[in-house]
Amino acid sequence: MQPRVQDLARFTLPPNFRGRPAWFVQLWWIVQGTLFRCSPQFMYGWRNFLLRLFGARIGKGVIIRPTAEITYPWKLTIGDYVWVGDHATLYTLGEIYIGDNACVSQHSYVCAAAHDYLKPTFDIYSSAVVIEPEVWLATNVFVAPGVTVGRGAVVGACSVVTKNVPPMTICAGNPAKVIRPRPTGEEVLSAAERQG
Amino acid sequence: MQPRVQDLARFTLPPNFRGRPAWFVQLWWIVQGTLFRCSPQFMYGWRNFLLRLFGARIGKGVIIRPTAEITYPWKLTIGDYVWVGDHATLYTLGEIYIGDNACVSQHSYVCAAAHDYLKPTFDIYSSAVVIEPEVWLATNVFVAPGVTVGRGAVVGACSVVTKNVPPMTICAGNPAKVIRPRPTGEEVLSAAERQG
Amino acid sequence: MQPRVQDLARFTLPPNFRGRPAWFVQLWWIVQGTLFRCSPQFMYGWRNFLLRLFGARIGKGVIIRPTAEITYPWKLTIGDYVWVGDHATLYTLGEIYIGDNACVSQHSYVCAAAHDYLKPTFDIYSSAVVIEPEVWLATNVFVAPGVTVGRGAVVGACSVVTKNVPPMTICAGNPAKVIRPRPTGEEVLSAAERQG
Repeated sequence: MQPRVQDLARFTLPPNFRGRPAWFVQLWWIVQGTLFRCSPQFMYGWRNFLLRLFGARIGKGVIIRPTAEITYPWKLTIGDYVWVGDHATLYTLGEIYIGDNACVSQHSYVCAAAHDYLKPTFDIYSSAVVIEPEVWLATNVFVAPGVTVGRGAVVGACSVVTKNVPPMTICAGNPAKVIRPRPTGEEVLSAAERQG
Repeated sequence: MQPRVQDLARFTLPPNFRGRPAWFVQLWWIVQGTLFRCSPQFMYGWRNFLLRLFGARIGKGVIIRPTAEITYPWKLTIGDYVWVGDHATLYTLGEIYIGDNACVSQHSYVCAAAHDYLKPTFDIYSSAVVIEPEVWLATNVFVAPGVTVGRGAVVGACSVVTKNVPPMTICAGNPAKVIRPRPTGEEVLSAAERQG
Repeated sequence: MQPRVQDLARFTLPPNFRGRPAWFVQLWWIVQGTLFRCSPQFMYGWRNFLLRLFGARIGKGVIIRPTAEITYPWKLTIGDYVWVGDHATLYTLGEIYIGDNACVSQHSYVCAAAHDYLKPTFDIYSSAVVIEPEVWLATNVFVAPGVTVGRGAVVGACSVVTKNVPPMTICAGNPAKVIRPRPTGEEVLSAAERQG
């Protein structure tokens, strides 16, 4: 008989993978499922307070909807004026960095961990994800572990981002591919003037 | 330094974008998260009553599951004998029209608004979506703002619909493309007779 | 006027389609929405107990997260050391079989039923899905009715599986296509030795 290629009975978490004790993680999930999720939509300050209480670094003017899920807040760093939409998931088993003025729309899934399927022990590993400033992940976008989405990029709805996205590009698809450049600030301004 | 291409601190909602006062919107979301979502599945009449109470126009024999989400009911018009599945989202920031005998299956997302990413102020805009009669959106389909899905079309599971879908076609993929025609009523009937 | 191609007013469930009385199904959904979903994450034994109470066959060492959804537990058969992630859906209107050491990651959707859109009565039908041992469905994978995912296959994140997946392959995309073979147990072991 062939040896197993995937033997989940032998899986173990690496030491201190979570970065916090197990009881603390469970406590956060209970808080998230109650005080966070059941808060009325306009209570953005309250939810930011809860995330900071559990170790997140969050800038000013940040708008996170109540049904967003953040797995480990202590591995999350968010800049100023960032939006995170309803049902978005920040799967922070590894570090996730979100720059100023970025928008992570509803149902998007930013994933900072995976399994090594070449090992029968199915080892889990984390790999940081960086969403640079002024990025827009439109609705239902998936971002894979280790990916950097470059400054000012726009990722179309339902795209699957498996590789780095160059700054100031518009990309879409499964897997996501660059479609065209996003106009720079100057181009946008001059176009606005022509329209004005 | 380059001017920002996306400056969320400068974002503002257009006047009366919601179509109702902010407190009314928040009230609906509380009602939806409690009386609507927690109702047992068979209480279809109760959920239709709640939606109509908040301004939706809903025909007879309509079946909406408790975990479906309708963002602004007052921008929703549904015909007779329509089904809306579990975890489906009708993101009615703009008007959504669903014709008689259409089926929006579980986890589908019909989206009637987006952002203008060419403006640093990231302006929000709405654009009506029309799901014509006898359409089937299979599970986990995304329909983009401004799209019309033509009468009798079938959209395959996990498709991403970014352009109008012609009537009586079967389409699938990301982005969705027409695969073949859907047999017309007469063709279906004569095939049934041959089988019968 | 053309006869309708889809007439949901004429839809009827086939006799005993659910396999249990309607009140029993509704009871399960209430249990799932409360005792199952609200249980803290570490209470895996409790959730397996509830599923078995409603007729599921579940092996040992099975890890099912609280936000996973199982439509009809009595049509579910799971082997040993299987994982089912958060927000995964096992849409068991037909039978679903999951073999030993398989992993169904978060947000995946295994679907064992569909509608016959060639009939105006939009007949529902079920078709069993088989996830063989040592398979990994990564996050947000869709598996269509009637599909078998072969032993040891890896299906990439956000893939849409519409046809059988051969054993020991890696596939991805919408629709999912085979990319390359997954190394066999022996290959994995010898590679590990070379690395060791």
